[in-house]
Amino acid sequence: MTRLNPPSRQSAGEPIDWSAAFSAYGQRATASEIRELLKLLDQPGIISFAGGIPDPGLFPVEILAKAHARIFADPTRAAAALQYSVSEGYPPLREQLAQGWRDQGVELSIDNIMITNGSQQALDLIGRLFLDAGDRLLSARPTYLGALQAFNGQAPSHGDLAELAAGRADAKLAYVMPDFANPTGESIGLNERHALLADADAAGVVVVEDAAYVSLSYDGEAPASLLALESASKGSIEAGRVIHCGTFSKTVVPGLRVGWVIAPEPVIRKLVLLKQAADLHTSTLAQMALSEVIDAIGQAHIVRLRETYSARRDAMLAALERHMPAGVNWTRPKGGMFVWLDLPHGVDGAELLARAIETERVAFVPGAAFFADGAKPNTLRLSFSLNPPAAIDEGVGRLGRLIRSTR
Amino acid sequence: MTRLNPPSRQSAGEPIDWSAAFSAYGQRATASEIRELLKLLDQPGIISFAGGIPDPGLFPVEILAKAHARIFADPTRAAAALQYSVSEGYPPLREQLAQGWRDQGVELSIDNIMITNGSQQALDLIGRLFLDAGDRLLSARPTYLGALQAFNGQAPSHGDLAELAAGRADAKLAYVMPDFANPTGESIGLNERHALLADADAAGVVVVEDAAYVSLSYDGEAPASLLALESASKGSIEAGRVIHCGTFSKTVVPGLRVGWVIAPEPVIRKLVLLKQAADLHTSTLAQMALSEVIDAIGQAHIVRLRETYSARRDAMLAALERHMPAGVNWTRPKGGMFVWLDLPHGVDGAELLARAIETERVAFVPGAAFFADGAKPNTLRLSFSLNPPAAIDEGVGRLGRLIRSTR
Repeated sequence: MTRLNPPSRQSAGEPIDWSAAFSAYGQRATASEIRELLKLLDQPGIISFAGGIPDPGLFPVEILAKAHARIFADPTRAAAALQYSVSEGYPPLREQLAQGWRDQGVELSIDNIMITNGSQQALDLIGRLFLDAGDRLLSARPTYLGALQAFNGQAPSHGDLAELAAGRADAKLAYVMPDFANPTGESIGLNERHALLADADAAGVVVVEDAAYVSLSYDGEAPASLLALESASKGSIEAGRVIHCGTFSKTVVPGLRVGWVIAPEPVIRKLVLLKQAADLHTSTLAQMALSEVIDAIGQAHIVRLRETYSARRDAMLAALERHMPAGVNWTRPKGGMFVWLDLPHGVDGAELLARAIETERVAFVPGAAFFADGAKPNTLRLSFSLNPPAAIDEGVGRLGRLIRSTR
Repeated sequence: MTRLNPPSRQSAGEPIDWSAAFSAYGQRATASEIRELLKLLDQPGIISFAGGIPDPGLFPVEILAKAHARIFADPTRAAAALQYSVSEGYPPLREQLAQGWRDQGVELSIDNIMITNGSQQALDLIGRLFLDAGDRLLSARPTYLGALQAFNGQAPSHGDLAELAAGRADAKLAYVMPDFANPTGESIGLNERHALLADADAAGVVVVEDAAYVSLSYDGEAPASLLALESASKGSIEAGRVIHCGTFSKTVVPGLRVGWVIAPEPVIRKLVLLKQAADLHTSTLAQMALSEVIDAIGQAHIVRLRETYSARRDAMLAALERHMPAGVNWTRPKGGMFVWLDLPHGVDGAELLARAIETERVAFVPGAAFFADGAKPNTLRLSFSLNPPAAIDEGVGRLGRLIRSTR
């Protein structure tokens, strides 16, 4: 817990030296490549595989519009939707989520669920609840950039998830995205899930399960979640060590910023206190609207998402086969939004991106951004969620041409 | 920077001891009295002066409904409203806020403004940006409970704002609510504002100005804000040390959770990084809707709020004169939502509340909650925002009867 700056008493009467005034966290926080890249999406002519962004053409706009209109038309509900509400989240929405789990045989109640501003806030609050500076955090390498950013607030030391199986047991948290992970698109199989839970038990580690992409499965359903597996083996989620994060961002819309966290009650009670201190509660109106919408859209909406995105996944894998030179390898995701590319050693993803934008008008995220230590510069992430198949083929063609010219 | 718990390796194979697994912050976070009190609002027959809650009868429901309907009816805007957006916040909304300041002679741009989930999130992010454990935070005594909760995340040491004038200069942040403060309702006069800024300059302290209640002025306009005064004296907000927090919670609606922070650009750039890590961005739809609404409601809406709340303020002050026994003193706020009572020594606000709810069916917040160290148990906060004048008189009458019976 060293501090990066001395107690920063500023000199009397002089303009503030802001950089010296910032906390250790303030000094650590730096702009991410993804963030800068998102600005490129607005440039005409660029085919962007950068953002992990759902296709707005798939947003259930009319259903959302009607839900909002119904709430505003009922004076009692409108007043509730626009008023302060409890930090735990809107009880009927939490009950719907709980019922969904009970329908799958996992017994939990609304007291196991807190609503968050997307799963990003769940990660931030979980980090603050568990991590002190220097505490060890295990995650896949590469892993979700937003998780690294959220946990970075606590200055953890980073370790590879593989340490769990190796019996290294000095970690506090293990962050896992079992289904169609960002950024690789890869999943953890059922046997590995059981092993991971056993290893976490043996090591006494808290497991954070990020299920952001679980509904976007294209080749059959994903295996049971870590939360469900642990609840089944231990008889109750109260006996477990899994904290599960979900979101409406990939299945309904991301712009309303609504997600949730599921955990044993002692964890939820504390998270509620941290949520209250952080922003009191998530938009009441957004929670009430989504409560209506998720009943209205039903499974048909998920089927439509899967059909659209799986066709794009197929298009991207076919285009990679068609256009990539030898020496380039990539993942074959069964869901989600991402394909991960390994380029020949010596090719730098960040340099490639600069040239890609300038000469080929195609964008992606350099893979180094997804490692806490910036390892593996010769990797990159492609998202297939936003472009139709023809644009995917064109964009991958441009990228293949660029890589070929690089060698 | 001591840690409250040893590195919490959990025992292999045993159920998790959650309390040992929590971080130092997780262990510090405890339930607030206000929070528990808000649950009482639902009980029938209680006259509650507890929550600092706007009257939902004053919400501009139709205007909000129309703004949402217009956004949903335009496919391009609907798609934008439901999609991910930038962490800084919706640019047109930031431009409207900037223009409002320029109209008052304060030159600032959208690069000086970030949108937050209410001003509560601004306080949380400012605390994280500036405070390390043990850093000294100055605030009024009593002060806003939510600010104490937000800053508590960083484990500051607490000092009285009066230290600034006394030339004690080892503080990092000074948190100030200059207008109709929560919980006292009191304001800082113009001369004191100039003095506070000079003292902050001399001490090299960053000033956080919380302007949550500034628009709710009942006896003429509030004095110029610290941000405006400093900008005028230094020629630019970039040369200043004031970070200003505002919110739509008191003037439009709180349930959408939209506020903002205004600061020199280097501070905003860092806050944007912390906001991105915390929850990516505030609801795009809520920001777009409020952007429409604040143009539509205009000054007439503020006038209506002032008329309604000032009549309630008058009713509460009159009721206090009528019903309180000798030895009870209270503030005479010129705006906001709160009156602060000093009770005779030996009367405990928390005990009084327990009896008030049981026997007199009236609720308030015990004043000790608004001190970092729980000082002054013989104080309490009354909110006059939610009840019509007759209920205010009845409730204060009940409270007076109770206090009289206590002595």
